[in-house]
Amino acid sequence: MNESIKEVESLLNDVINDDYSLLNEAGKHILTSGGKRIRPYFVLLSGTFGSTNDQTLIKTATALEIIHMASLVHDDYIDNSAKRRGVNAVHEEWDAPVAIQTGHYFLAAALNLIADIDNERYHQYFADVILEVSYGEFAQLEDQYQTNVTFRKYLRRINRKTAILLEASCKLGGMSTGASDKHIYHLGRFGHFVGMSFQIIDDVLDYTSTEEQLGKPVGSDIRNGHVTLPLMVALSHDAHLKQLMTELHPDQTDQYFDQVIQSVRQYGIKESLEISATYSRKAHEHLLQLPETPARAKMMKLLTRLTQRTH
Amino acid sequence: MNESIKEVESLLNDVINDDYSLLNEAGKHILTSGGKRIRPYFVLLSGTFGSTNDQTLIKTATALEIIHMASLVHDDYIDNSAKRRGVNAVHEEWDAPVAIQTGHYFLAAALNLIADIDNERYHQYFADVILEVSYGEFAQLEDQYQTNVTFRKYLRRINRKTAILLEASCKLGGMSTGASDKHIYHLGRFGHFVGMSFQIIDDVLDYTSTEEQLGKPVGSDIRNGHVTLPLMVALSHDAHLKQLMTELHPDQTDQYFDQVIQSVRQYGIKESLEISATYSRKAHEHLLQLPETPARAKMMKLLTRLTQRTH
Repeated sequence: MNESIKEVESLLNDVINDDYSLLNEAGKHILTSGGKRIRPYFVLLSGTFGSTNDQTLIKTATALEIIHMASLVHDDYIDNSAKRRGVNAVHEEWDAPVAIQTGHYFLAAALNLIADIDNERYHQYFADVILEVSYGEFAQLEDQYQTNVTFRKYLRRINRKTAILLEASCKLGGMSTGASDKHIYHLGRFGHFVGMSFQIIDDVLDYTSTEEQLGKPVGSDIRNGHVTLPLMVALSHDAHLKQLMTELHPDQTDQYFDQVIQSVRQYGIKESLEISATYSRKAHEHLLQLPETPARAKMMKLLTRLTQRTH
Repeated sequence: MNESIKEVESLLNDVINDDYSLLNEAGKHILTSGGKRIRPYFVLLSGTFGSTNDQTLIKTATALEIIHMASLVHDDYIDNSAKRRGVNAVHEEWDAPVAIQTGHYFLAAALNLIADIDNERYHQYFADVILEVSYGEFAQLEDQYQTNVTFRKYLRRINRKTAILLEASCKLGGMSTGASDKHIYHLGRFGHFVGMSFQIIDDVLDYTSTEEQLGKPVGSDIRNGHVTLPLMVALSHDAHLKQLMTELHPDQTDQYFDQVIQSVRQYGIKESLEISATYSRKAHEHLLQLPETPARAKMMKLLTRLTQRTH
């Protein structure tokens, strides 16, 4: 596993190493800003449930990480987030055009990396995933500053934002090594439910954590007009928060956002964590449908780490 | 041919028709802003040199037009061009995030459209083209406000900006219908040289045309810091222009740009048009290597129309 992750890191480096110093620098900036390589791990672990194991798996793992990084660069710009994990976002370190082109180039590079894989089902699925993710980014843009988000809409949003790519990592890992359809199915469901649980935790931490641990201001989501689950839950319990929401706009005061954050902390956290736990239990159930291997044990650990984190 | 172009238009419409009104509107805005569908025409005409003729060809034609539109949306934003063909650019009509997501979504949609085509060579080539185009956009960004552009660098830039996608249209058209390697080669060279000639004309017209005909201000390229062939030629003949270039920056006065435009008109146009004509002759030569068919005759006409236009 460690050997494979090293190969992924090396391929990631190859992709961003080229003649253009600007692309090189911007690429390195993202690559080294401390991603946890969750998607590659999921690909590689899922790949153990098949029988073949070749360069396809490494390429798939690398491509998914690159696509993930591309979406982060664009998201940061669109959300106007100056920091990610405590370091400057690309549009902040350089400017918006560099951020857009970096994201665009990353997507193209990822597709190029997997283009010679001879598996039609794999490519059709991969293309569907990318389209769905891109669609999701659009929907998120449209939902910004919409305070009447339904639960269903929220779930669809976090699916596209996070769960789909984790589901794809698991399924494509299985497809890459010829895993059985049954195993690919359970791998996919596992990835999906981990992703849902993980994203809800992320949305909770945006309210409960500290600026130091987040590497960006507390309450960044609502400051950027994104209504997430903790706020939605709190809205159903606190009439004052409902009133506050009618005054939401990009230039509200810090005092205003402090009030919102306080209300969400009081009324929105517990229930949100319960919903997250429901998803993580489902992920666990699907994992149990897979053969008991060392890889499955590692996936159990990853599940716990990703869905029970407190910062 | 007209029947096929209608199918392309219909597929283009399908791609942008969806639940999200914002994507729908932005997509329609671009789709209906009067593109000449040059890439689809090249695909369809090139496809006549093979023997099969099915949905692959239509999908390829549509995908290339979508990729072209995606790059226009991003280019306009990065160049800060408010208008394209006289109508508002997407980032002007909406905002930058909408422009970025529209471009991103278009790229994903194009890839999705062709994902089920079962032809490994086709996909590898397609992926290489997209990467190269994306790379070129980066290079262009890096070259902005660099006044010491070499001829070689300029040629590489217009290749990536325009010629590659026209070359790809012709080659992929041939590949889609099982044309012979020899025919695919000449189709590709034809597309490449048309593209080079066409882009030089475009760069000339940016100086010689009128704001009314361009749908944007005269001299937009240099106003955005892009040094193109006519300016490069003029620089080698006019010492005063060389002096002026040392004072180039984004906030220069209209009077300054008027001086630059005057010098380029006087010293840079004739030679540039001669270089363009050299490329168009090469395109013609490769066309003559193809069988004498009605499609070839149409390609001759297109060549003339694209490389001898005066507005």
